[in-house]
Order: sequence, then C-alpha cells, then structure tokens
Amino acid sequence: MLDVAGCANLRKPPRAVTPTWDERRSRPPFAETTLTDAAPIAAFLRPVPADLPTPYVEIDEDRLTRNLRGMQARAMAAGVTLRPHIKTHKCLAIARRQLELGAVGVTASKPEEALVFVEAGIPSVTLAYPIVRPQSIDRLVQSVKSRGTELFLIAASEVGIEAIGAAAEAHGVRLGVFLKIDVGLGRVGVKPSDPRALVLAESISRHPHLIFAGLLSHAGHSYGSKILEEISKIADAEAAALAELARRLRQSGVDVSRISVGATPTCLGAAIPEGVTEIRPGNYAFLDRTALRLGISTPDDISLSVIATVVAHNDKHFIIDAGSKSLSSDLGAHGSGGSGFGVAVSADGAYAETFEVERLSEEHGFVRFSNTPPTIGSRVRIFPNHACAVVAQFDSVTLRQSDGRAAALRIDARGRQT
Amino acid sequence: MLDVAGCANLRKPPRAVTPTWDERRSRPPFAETTLTDAAPIAAFLRPVPADLPTPYVEIDEDRLTRNLRGMQARAMAAGVTLRPHIKTHKCLAIARRQLELGAVGVTASKPEEALVFVEAGIPSVTLAYPIVRPQSIDRLVQSVKSRGTELFLIAASEVGIEAIGAAAEAHGVRLGVFLKIDVGLGRVGVKPSDPRALVLAESISRHPHLIFAGLLSHAGHSYGSKILEEISKIADAEAAALAELARRLRQSGVDVSRISVGATPTCLGAAIPEGVTEIRPGNYAFLDRTALRLGISTPDDISLSVIATVVAHNDKHFIIDAGSKSLSSDLGAHGSGGSGFGVAVSADGAYAETFEVERLSEEHGFVRFSNTPPTIGSRVRIFPNHACAVVAQFDSVTLRQSDGRAAALRIDARGRQT
Repeated sequence: MLDVAGCANLRKPPRAVTPTWDERRSRPPFAETTLTDAAPIAAFLRPVPADLPTPYVEIDEDRLTRNLRGMQARAMAAGVTLRPHIKTHKCLAIARRQLELGAVGVTASKPEEALVFVEAGIPSVTLAYPIVRPQSIDRLVQSVKSRGTELFLIAASEVGIEAIGAAAEAHGVRLGVFLKIDVGLGRVGVKPSDPRALVLAESISRHPHLIFAGLLSHAGHSYGSKILEEISKIADAEAAALAELARRLRQSGVDVSRISVGATPTCLGAAIPEGVTEIRPGNYAFLDRTALRLGISTPDDISLSVIATVVAHNDKHFIIDAGSKSLSSDLGAHGSGGSGFGVAVSADGAYAETFEVERLSEEHGFVRFSNTPPTIGSRVRIFPNHACAVVAQFDSVTLRQSDGRAAALRIDARGRQT
Repeated sequence: MLDVAGCANLRKPPRAVTPTWDERRSRPPFAETTLTDAAPIAAFLRPVPADLPTPYVEIDEDRLTRNLRGMQARAMAAGVTLRPHIKTHKCLAIARRQLELGAVGVTASKPEEALVFVEAGIPSVTLAYPIVRPQSIDRLVQSVKSRGTELFLIAASEVGIEAIGAAAEAHGVRLGVFLKIDVGLGRVGVKPSDPRALVLAESISRHPHLIFAGLLSHAGHSYGSKILEEISKIADAEAAALAELARRLRQSGVDVSRISVGATPTCLGAAIPEGVTEIRPGNYAFLDRTALRLGISTPDDISLSVIATVVAHNDKHFIIDAGSKSLSSDLGAHGSGGSGFGVAVSADGAYAETFEVERLSEEHGFVRFSNTPPTIGSRVRIFPNHACAVVAQFDSVTLRQSDGRAAALRIDARGRQT
C-alpha cells in the first residue's frame, strides 16, 4: 500500500483500510446498491505524483501486484494452473511478472499478438483464437519451432483443424489443439451436447501433426450477470458441461488431459470448480468499472485508471481531454454494461464526490456534475468501463511504482490485430 | 472508377452507375428507408485484390480522391477556404493530397497530433482544441516558431487565453486564437448570446502575444439529425448565430476576420451559408455508415472499409476476426447512432445480401444472418459506423490504388492523444 498521506498533492488523503482477499470476497457486490453509495469517495482516491501530459493511463504497481498475486494464490489453492490472457495488458513486463509469480505461460488472442510474446522468450503460449487459414500462423509456427516454445491452439471446425494441421505439416512440427467449447457466450465453439464434439476431437487426435490438448472454454456471458450468485452458477454449469463431455470423449477413447476455462468474472467471483485444470483470466490484472458493477472488485482493487485534465465547463458537464480515442466506447466486455463510460474523481481529492463520464467525442469526455465542477486545468482520475479496451489505445502507459515514481511501460503488442 | 468487371475474384461484378455529385445531393436520404432496401447490394461491392492478413482497413484511392475533390469543389464554389480536420485519417500522405487539391492547411485535435503535421512541413495548422495549460503546447509552439508554420488555436475561457498567451510569450511569438463558440453541441465554447463572448474576444485582442483570429464552431450535434432538412437548419442556424455575434463584436471594435465552421454533415448535407469564410470537415474523406444513416453519402461514396475473415458460425451469427479493437465500439460521432457496429457484405460478392455487425468482443464480430452464412475462411467487407475511430486503431492501413494494387499507408499520428 502506498503511503498516500505522504503525498503533498492529495489534499484529503484517504486512509482506506485494505481488506484481505477473503474479506473482499465476502462483501456484498456493488451491483446491489448504487456505485456512489457503496463505494466511499476515499476508495477511489490515489496520489497523482507525476505532472505528465494528459490523458495518460496509470497502472498502480502495488495494486497490480496484489491482483496478480491474488489470482495466482487462487489458482494454487484450487490446484489448477494459471495461464493469464495478455490481451488485457499486451505488455511483456507484466507477462514476465505473471510468470515469475507462477503462471505456466500466457494466452493470446491473435497470431501476431502471440508472436510478440513468443519472440520475447515466453516459454508456453496458447493462441485462444479460431485459426481457419494456415497462412495466418505461418510466422508464429516458424517462430515457436525455432525457439522451442510450447504452442497450443484451438479449433471448433474441420476447416480450423485442417488449417492448423497444414501449418504444422508445412513446418514439420506437431501442435497441441484444444477443442473450443461454447458454454453459453454463443460466439465460437461446439456446444457440449453437440455430437460434432466427438467427431472434431477424434479428428484432432487422428491428425498426424496435431495433438489433442483437451477442452477449452470462455464463459464470457458471465459479464452479463446481475448478481454474484449468477456468476457462480455460470462457473459451475461450465465445469459440469465440460466434465460431462470429457467423460463421453474418454468413453470413446479420446484422452482429455486438460480442461481450460477462463473469464475474470468466473475466476474472481466464484470458486474454481472441481475438474478444471487451468484458468485463463486476463482482466483481473487491472479490473475496471465492469468488475465493480459485477461485484467482483472494490474500487481499491482497480489498478488501472486514466488521468485527464478539465478543459471546459458548460451547463451540465465539465469536459475532459480524454474521449473515445483514449477511454474507448466500450460499455463493458462483449458488449455488456450499462450507461456511461466511467467513474471520475478529482485527482487531488478536492471534490468529495464521484462523477459519471456520460458521453464521449473522440478527444473529449462529457462528465456530468450537479454541484460544482472541478476547476478548468485541474486533473481528474477516471476508472473506465473496460480496461482492456483502454490499454489497446496507447503505445505506452505510466506505471506508478511503490515508491511513488512514474515509469513508462510499453504496450508491446498494441496494434497486433492480425 | 475502378474497372470492377476486370477483377477475377469478384464473382458478381456490380456495374453501379456512379451518379454525379449533384445527382447524389438530390437523392432522398437512406435514413428514410431501411439500409438494405435503399442501397442495392451492388453498391457495397468492390474487388479485394490483395490476400492480406485480416482484419485490415482498406482505403479505396479513387473514392478517396473523389471525396477530396468534391469537398474542395464545394468550398471553392462557395468562396470559402477548406482546412480539413486530419483527426479522421492522421495520415501525412492524405493531408498532402488535400493541400495539393487546394486546402489552405489542416485542423488537428491534440498538440502532439498537430506536431506530426507541423514537423512534416504542413505550412498552416489550426489546433481546434481548448488548451488550458501552457506546457501542453510547449513543443508545438517551439516547432512552429523554428519552422515558420502558421498556427491557430482556440480558446473558450480566460484560463485558456492565459495559457496560450503564456506559451506564446515564453517563445517570443504571437499566436492566432479563435474564440470557440458553442452552436449547439454543448461541449466546448461560449454560447453566441453569452456576454462573455465579447469579454473573451477583447481579452484575446488585447493580449500582447495573441492575435484574435475570429470565430470558430463545430456543429457536431448535426450527427444527431434524423433527416437532411434538419442538417440544413443546423448549418443555417450556426452561420446566423456566428454572423450576429460577429456583427456585435465588430460594433464593439473587435475585428472578426474569419468565421470557421466544420462538421461533415453540415458541409456535405447543406449549402455552405453566406458569411462563413472557412470549413473544417474531416470525415468526408472516408465517410461511413453514419454518413449513410444521415443521408449525406451513398454506399458508393464510402472510401474506407474493413476486410475481415469468417472464423466461425453459430445458430444466429457468423463470427469475423474483427472486433472492437479494430472496428471500435463507436455507434457514431459524439455518441450518436443506432444499433449495430457496421454493414457487412461478402467480399467476393458470393452472397447477394447485406449483414449487420450486431455485437462485438475485442477481437470478434458477431454478424447476424438469416439465410446462409458466408463459408468459414471466406472474407467479408465491413462498412463501419465511424471511420475516424477505426483508423485510430491501426498503425497502417491499405490503400487500394486505381490500378488495383495495394500499398501500405502509415497512420502517422495514431496514438497522439496528448
């Protein structure tokens, strides 16, 4: 915990008592009350040590470390491996920290994104994206072959299996392929009860250049939950469906050695169910207003915020220099979420209230006020809806270190969309 | 116009007759009917010459040039100068083309963004953003001084005037400052009837390091229009309010030499009113689904689209490899817009229907289908909601040249948020 009282520019230093992990887990979710009622202003305040050009993304090192340690501890306590999704931070320094703490490797969402981590020497990577053309992974497979990196992929169609198989054959390697199961998001994957699951699993198993890695799912529909209990139900249903499918596959002679699940809501908001062997959450490193809404995070857990400057006032709003090109227009993950684009507080604690970022232009945020707006030129701290979407806008972010100093953190895989 | 019939990979070559500028202007807006009814599928189809990794942004050079020429012709016909807003493309090559065609300079939205264009030798730049701290423009003023670039800024508060004045004084230069007028967007600016307009204009005029450049407004609320007539009304009201304010300022001895307006809806969807001396549209270079919705563009006018690959099918959607990290989550400019994130067509013309991009994850788009989805591995072309937001996600885009070849176009000012 930073010694916030020692920071001169925070006029009303909060002394929020940091609850233990278990205490936080047993709290009622904020979703049950209004955000402002549930979260006292002090919980949102932090020192702003560096007078940097705004807008910039601040990552609070202590909170980040606490989040990384917390998830690693949960994985270890449940006896599962942690393979964090790096689409959240796209940052080698953070990935290396995750590995130091015990993660077995990383998960990536596009071949070129995965390549950044492979080329940096990360020893094991899962590309959790449905590859359907061999040329998409040509460079990646070349790279993992020359480096000896462990690479897993996913498939949910014969086209996908053939594509990965062709790439593996072209490079003379064998690649691990998970069968992607759709457990309710309705995006990519075979439904657990679909007879095609066995057909595809056998197809992977039989392919001379592929190894059947197991079952993989993403319960992204948990972002639509209204209460914590719903998240638990989703996590349990996911694990049960995968276990039942694994049983059927094993009966048919297909070895299911791994069951990999992962979404921050289920990994943080529910117990890790029996039968799961690996978790792949990403957002937990930073957390955001969506995590607050879901009740899986307190304001004090959120390690990412955006510092902006008040540039104008009008009748209803004060205007900040962060718009959709910094905060993104995401309401939440997978299109979930409610109104507004984030919670704002005055950065120096001069205004004891939270404000809502109500509307965005490209480079302006419209922040609603009822009493007095923060003065023009003063700074605000914004807790955005979706941390992963914010980081993807920036080439680098600012790490506020334990000692209060600011350091630049490169977003190494930003812009790797292909 | 590209010879689309000559392109082998377009199975059903459309021979859409390209209407003249005036014919297009007199068409009923698409907003009056459904998009699919109003716009025949052929209008959305184009050849996809390059088998590049997806997703990528394609800029159609012929359509881009037609849009740039069209706006320049409109400005010239109305006797006003054109100073395009480069926040849309953030690209030096396109800015240079705009200047070659007759633009007097460019408009930028952040100091670091403006700096890219100043350092590349663009001779005149308006930074249409409310600067409130001198240090924000320190590097920019240093650069324009050493290069002899003409720089205009805007102010809407005493804080802003003092900040710009202090920067000008520190570098020993005089800077042109427009008074920013809020003509209805409710974002930044003094209301035309507000007595502070005269106070601030006099404050700029009196400052020893500032030159009062005139009045500047952005009718961004025109993006909320339902019919073309509404856009005309907004354009006329804007010009009338500015003319009336200019009259009052002149009466008080303040010289108003420039009246600068600019938003693509008013510049394309309405006549350029009397009294205006400069227009600053940006989006017109590319156009997008928002322009279609507003009725200021036909599908055939849109020069920007995103090429993506179908990676999965499920019951309701086919899934493409472009999500919010490529298409952005913008519904439209300034939070305008309706449902969905773009119109998709199969890239090779194999499916004679338009599809709606209904939902986005970070790297996946959910595209609704009713009949048959395009095959896994095939490509689709997406016309996104907001072209400016899409370009801001990419380090480079693909220019499809008149001869059909693809060239990389660098997005020079991407990520310049400060």
